[in-house]
Amino acid sequence: MVDQPVWEQIGSSFVTHYYQMFDSDRSRLGAIYTDASCLTWEGQQFQGKNDIVKKLTSLPFTKIAHSITAQDHQPTPDFCIMSMIVGQLKADNDSVMGFHQTFILKNVNDSWVCTNDMFRLALHNFG
Amino acid sequence: MVDQPVWEQIGSSFVTHYYQMFDSDRSRLGAIYTDASCLTWEGQQFQGKNDIVKKLTSLPFTKIAHSITAQDHQPTPDFCIMSMIVGQLKADNDSVMGFHQTFILKNVNDSWVCTNDMFRLALHNFG
Repeated sequence: MVDQPVWEQIGSSFVTHYYQMFDSDRSRLGAIYTDASCLTWEGQQFQGKNDIVKKLTSLPFTKIAHSITAQDHQPTPDFCIMSMIVGQLKADNDSVMGFHQTFILKNVNDSWVCTNDMFRLALHNFG
Repeated sequence: MVDQPVWEQIGSSFVTHYYQMFDSDRSRLGAIYTDASCLTWEGQQFQGKNDIVKKLTSLPFTKIAHSITAQDHQPTPDFCIMSMIVGQLKADNDSVMGFHQTFILKNVNDSWVCTNDMFRLALHNFG
């Protein structure tokens, strides 16, 4: 059995933790961000754990479930980890939708925090 | 008129350049990578401009056209730029497919190179 590279272990643990927390109580997600973290959510930009959590908790659904289709992880030149997720989600009684999310994780004082977060629903104009 | 932040200008110029080159002559894409760059293509990992270009030129289609649905750009804590793209592509006579791609761009000797690249088709198991 081949061990996973360390960035894959860290990235996939983060991803599991993030979506479990998002789906159970997203108000607690502040713990993974810093005051310098950036979130771009469907093109809207937010900075700092407070504004990020305010945005996440104001999203207009009460129940959500994420399902991960694929995740990839890479080390960056600056000792961070980039994680890209392709998945599907179901919010309340809406139809299942595809989504795409990318994180950068950085080691700060011996713990991994999310410095960059981008989220998009996979909605195209099939015009 | 509000100027775009510099990372948005650099990120969107890169994205335009990348897909124009990919769609016209992808053998020339080596110029944007370094020998340390990482590519994860549909879960397969490649490192260094030579191996990356070898993979890209061996993809089994002759004609391809990318269309960008949405792109987001953020500065990272280490003075890089992260760019995430959601789009659609059409390869040869295949059906149009959704795709997701994320890049990290780093300034090396006054030019921007791609250190990290991840690509996934938006294929889910709708089982």
